[in-house]
Amino acid sequence: MASIQLRARDLGITVGSLPTGERNLITDVAGLRVGHCTVADEKHNTGVTVILPCEENPFAHKLPAAAFVLNGFGKTAGLVQVEELGRIESPIALTNTLNVGKVHDAMVEYLLRRCKAEDVPISSVNPIVCECNDAALNTIHERAVGEIEVLAAIESAADVFPLGDVGGGKGMICHGLKGGIGSASRVVEFDGKTYTVGVLVQTNHGLMRDLTIGGKLVGPALSAAVKAAKGGDGSCIAILATDLPLDSRQLRRVARRMGVGLMRLGSYIDHGSGEVFLAFSTANAVGAATPAVHTAAAFNDEFIDPVFRAAAECAEEAVLDSMLSAGTVTGPTGKTAYSLAALWDKTGL
Amino acid sequence: MASIQLRARDLGITVGSLPTGERNLITDVAGLRVGHCTVADEKHNTGVTVILPCEENPFAHKLPAAAFVLNGFGKTAGLVQVEELGRIESPIALTNTLNVGKVHDAMVEYLLRRCKAEDVPISSVNPIVCECNDAALNTIHERAVGEIEVLAAIESAADVFPLGDVGGGKGMICHGLKGGIGSASRVVEFDGKTYTVGVLVQTNHGLMRDLTIGGKLVGPALSAAVKAAKGGDGSCIAILATDLPLDSRQLRRVARRMGVGLMRLGSYIDHGSGEVFLAFSTANAVGAATPAVHTAAAFNDEFIDPVFRAAAECAEEAVLDSMLSAGTVTGPTGKTAYSLAALWDKTGL
Amino acid sequence: MASIQLRARDLGITVGSLPTGERNLITDVAGLRVGHCTVADEKHNTGVTVILPCEENPFAHKLPAAAFVLNGFGKTAGLVQVEELGRIESPIALTNTLNVGKVHDAMVEYLLRRCKAEDVPISSVNPIVCECNDAALNTIHERAVGEIEVLAAIESAADVFPLGDVGGGKGMICHGLKGGIGSASRVVEFDGKTYTVGVLVQTNHGLMRDLTIGGKLVGPALSAAVKAAKGGDGSCIAILATDLPLDSRQLRRVARRMGVGLMRLGSYIDHGSGEVFLAFSTANAVGAATPAVHTAAAFNDEFIDPVFRAAAECAEEAVLDSMLSAGTVTGPTGKTAYSLAALWDKTGL
Amino acid sequence: MASIQLRARDLGITVGSLPTGERNLITDVAGLRVGHCTVADEKHNTGVTVILPCEENPFAHKLPAAAFVLNGFGKTAGLVQVEELGRIESPIALTNTLNVGKVHDAMVEYLLRRCKAEDVPISSVNPIVCECNDAALNTIHERAVGEIEVLAAIESAADVFPLGDVGGGKGMICHGLKGGIGSASRVVEFDGKTYTVGVLVQTNHGLMRDLTIGGKLVGPALSAAVKAAKGGDGSCIAILATDLPLDSRQLRRVARRMGVGLMRLGSYIDHGSGEVFLAFSTANAVGAATPAVHTAAAFNDEFIDPVFRAAAECAEEAVLDSMLSAGTVTGPTGKTAYSLAALWDKTGL
Repeated sequence: MASIQLRARDLGITVGSLPTGERNLITDVAGLRVGHCTVADEKHNTGVTVILPCEENPFAHKLPAAAFVLNGFGKTAGLVQVEELGRIESPIALTNTLNVGKVHDAMVEYLLRRCKAEDVPISSVNPIVCECNDAALNTIHERAVGEIEVLAAIESAADVFPLGDVGGGKGMICHGLKGGIGSASRVVEFDGKTYTVGVLVQTNHGLMRDLTIGGKLVGPALSAAVKAAKGGDGSCIAILATDLPLDSRQLRRVARRMGVGLMRLGSYIDHGSGEVFLAFSTANAVGAATPAVHTAAAFNDEFIDPVFRAAAECAEEAVLDSMLSAGTVTGPTGKTAYSLAALWDKTGL
Repeated sequence: MASIQLRARDLGITVGSLPTGERNLITDVAGLRVGHCTVADEKHNTGVTVILPCEENPFAHKLPAAAFVLNGFGKTAGLVQVEELGRIESPIALTNTLNVGKVHDAMVEYLLRRCKAEDVPISSVNPIVCECNDAALNTIHERAVGEIEVLAAIESAADVFPLGDVGGGKGMICHGLKGGIGSASRVVEFDGKTYTVGVLVQTNHGLMRDLTIGGKLVGPALSAAVKAAKGGDGSCIAILATDLPLDSRQLRRVARRMGVGLMRLGSYIDHGSGEVFLAFSTANAVGAATPAVHTAAAFNDEFIDPVFRAAAECAEEAVLDSMLSAGTVTGPTGKTAYSLAALWDKTGL
Repeated sequence: MASIQLRARDLGITVGSLPTGERNLITDVAGLRVGHCTVADEKHNTGVTVILPCEENPFAHKLPAAAFVLNGFGKTAGLVQVEELGRIESPIALTNTLNVGKVHDAMVEYLLRRCKAEDVPISSVNPIVCECNDAALNTIHERAVGEIEVLAAIESAADVFPLGDVGGGKGMICHGLKGGIGSASRVVEFDGKTYTVGVLVQTNHGLMRDLTIGGKLVGPALSAAVKAAKGGDGSCIAILATDLPLDSRQLRRVARRMGVGLMRLGSYIDHGSGEVFLAFSTANAVGAATPAVHTAAAFNDEFIDPVFRAAAECAEEAVLDSMLSAGTVTGPTGKTAYSLAALWDKTGL
Repeated sequence: MASIQLRARDLGITVGSLPTGERNLITDVAGLRVGHCTVADEKHNTGVTVILPCEENPFAHKLPAAAFVLNGFGKTAGLVQVEELGRIESPIALTNTLNVGKVHDAMVEYLLRRCKAEDVPISSVNPIVCECNDAALNTIHERAVGEIEVLAAIESAADVFPLGDVGGGKGMICHGLKGGIGSASRVVEFDGKTYTVGVLVQTNHGLMRDLTIGGKLVGPALSAAVKAAKGGDGSCIAILATDLPLDSRQLRRVARRMGVGLMRLGSYIDHGSGEVFLAFSTANAVGAATPAVHTAAAFNDEFIDPVFRAAAECAEEAVLDSMLSAGTVTGPTGKTAYSLAALWDKTGL
């Protein structure tokens, strides 16, 4: 079944009160691109989604970043250095759990080649590889995502990109239904200037019984209609980008608010679910020419509330859209994760 | 206006699916007692609430504990040692922000005296003093809570205790209405044996516009009816107790789930709100006679999901009850925080 | 016995390779002042030392800051907010363990009064109160340090100040000898401009058997000469200041290097010793007039190594000076902590 | 030049005061084995070292563990889950920075195969892959360590194993000299029963000018004799094992003390050096049959000081032995890292 690309706003559902960016996608933050490579055949439903954080080479244009781990039952690679240096220096890949090693190696290869081509000196590099477990719909032990797929995802990166059961979202299960990739954005204003906050999620978390949309507990009605798919070990990855000049401490504060979105949709962040959130700013890149003491843009925490609200709203809408935009997917062992869009009339919404 | 003591279940509202303990209070965990001392006069609406974690002297009976700080804009004292040693060794006091010092000193005095009376050697001690800012309803700069009030609260501690605008909750404002002290409990079962999870909150957080009850956004309707009170700097303290033998790492995981309750009621954890959560277990106390290597009860994380669900449910219900059980309070400058119970018909619930 | 004020450099001992500031004190960082109030009588050897971080009102001139807790067996108050907001907004007080509450309250009073006098709006405030246990030389349970002493210490604050057995250092025991207050500074240069790093310590940690000076294990020889004093529960507080524009993440990195100094003098950071380190920058203050988005000075981590080296050198020299500058002190129960200066010939150095 | 296998004790140098285990190796902790695979040819000096934490399948026999990151400029994979669950479930691999992805994938393959062979259900798994940068002596961009090498290292694992320029230590540079793999152990006693603490390090950190042995600054004399090799970005990995029943919180405390050893040898933990420490206990494994509530051995923190001392002593001696046991190595671009053993007479020790 094909990807559906239905979004909550197509159904008249709005989340929160802030205005969205132009496309209501993370790529409303200028400079970002997102690409997918999907591996779907009789044995596999998996893939990789890559976020390119800026048009420049990220290794030569290190951006402020921070992670918040709401539940660390996960295998995300790269967070040790982000925590220490407060910067990312690579694209961000989202894939399945057992592919972390191969995708990590592919990201290294991509950055070495790119740096060589662009005459950027490079010794080591810290790829960010996030993951959820797609074992229910995918022959995960075969580790079907490697260098070819990562490079294809990067090659296809654009500011408009599909959502749902694509890329790293192909094999995801969310609240017992088909999950995948979702995204949303919000615009905030300070001193007459607008800034954008965007979120992209890979959703593989939650139980059907708890699914709550717009405050209405719809899980039980859906359970009566279809059999919930049981995900592997759950997990939800959420990546936030903004052009506001936030430093890593502030980005960690903002990342933390993405949990609001998951919880409002019914998740209580269960044990097996690795909830890993990462936020970065496209302002204040540091590169080889940055002197020891220099001038940077900065943000006063006293004004941060609209950014927190934007993070919460974006996360909630992105998770919801990850489900609405995904089609029904059946895995190699016959397990099926149904599309929320196809079951919408059962929700009574 | 007198305290109301209405609870959500009196209105037919249940939160979640797990059964409550006998009283639906944190004191359903055996051994706990809670006492209040309220300071209410023409200049003050403040006080202190004390949780006695066990019947024994807590300094001689140190309990496993952990904190999770969801938003650290707060002045809670005592967390450095809890983080390192994974234990509490004192009662837990909840008061107003500027009284932290005086209450800290009073707790030291209480523990020195008690240890002397009981022949327990004591050199230093780590009191836990949590706080929210009640400046809107209280002449906070006068710091009206000190040793007399702390000792009175301890003296009055019992397993049945009032909720709402009492003790440390007297001057609290939650979602623009009167907040205060709330509590709830849940029972979970493992291998045929039941255990209890209990939560107590001091609620001073949230905006009226965001208040959401049972999934319904009721803030706008309430805003049409009354003027929202503006709290000081917000904050919410949540304390969780259980008789399950969780260690400090596991207690931190459980504490983290209390945020679910706040977020479902509409909070997105704003900048000025110090959300500080503390969890402790009444099992596996350590004292002077505990040998280097000994035997203890332990819990396997694989089974922890019902405890997470209990923490989320308890926190949501406790916050809701903190509002429903509180009466309308007017402060010395004429600001009024209205009782949710008195406005219940405006919610349409 | 009077304070000695001998310093390592008076004995020809230099620590590390970087040049010191003018006075080799934390106050070589412009704007800082340090004051002491000592309580010494037949029952007490205690006091308080206060660091004023800037000439301005710190509540209206919030400075970037971060803490690193190397061993959290301690009762320092104020770190929750520093961790979240990356700022201090009060002077920093160093006192004995059981006086944390009274000193906290005194700091609140001082800041409320000062803000009132200067027309600075204030609702709540986050005092930083650090502590070590001076129970061996002081009747600690009487809590002899309160508002009068704190205000006296602030009143006496100056850029030249005594070291050793003064203020919060009066009752300290370090490596079984008399400890107290030590300080040191280093100058670093970036792009032709010089910056200062200064450290102040309150030393109450370590065993005599482990004392190592300039790489030589002198503990055993000293043990043969005098009886080691047994401290309460140990602890070492170290405060670092700099005029370099470091943000809170960078300050935490720098704070972490102060441990090097303690370890080189022989400490392995024992269980009972609360090693709490705090670092702040006098650059980039934020106040009421700071707009949401603004310009600030920033520092590129790639150049940070001299700052790390300065932190390590300052901490080692400050701890050594805290001992050399202190006189022998005998407490109310007859316990004596001997002056290292008086025993210098026993070290063979 | 062949590996030298000289150890500090062969030169009459002892570190600290505690007795060593039988071999003075991490494998003195019962059940541990260590294996190497070295890749050394005209283009490469690299490899992988694997620690098998127990005789059982680690995925079915999850051991208590914790990490402490002293300086997070590193790419170690697997720590997110260790922090959350307090357990390891895989061997621990030490390799070069750019090989993290390939070694991660190889560890996944090894565990999937082993679990299949042993009928252990497995969906996802969390390999621990630690790294230092060997770019100065190795053509690191070629990523010469993969599945074959990892399986060879595991195959060769034994309780007696070589140190120095072997396995993951082949291309390491420590204090400007040849570094590599070092190890040491100590025996501690509680209530008449002995327990073992063992450490293994991969050393790639420090400057020659700072090298200090037995308290004597020998760096300048060595600098006069040979040209210091400049390492990549530094780093030091330290793994600690013990049969004491410590939980993850206690293991983190113990891991933190390993920094003492590095600092006493002269490191101030520079910016580019990823100091990542991991500690685990062989007691209290959890597996599929572990019930929700069960009984475990536990340790009272009040007695932990000898374990801290053991961690500090082991780390110092292991780093020193990593240098003494290594031969001189020249890399593909002609850079040479000299053996400390060969230069020993220059130290004046």
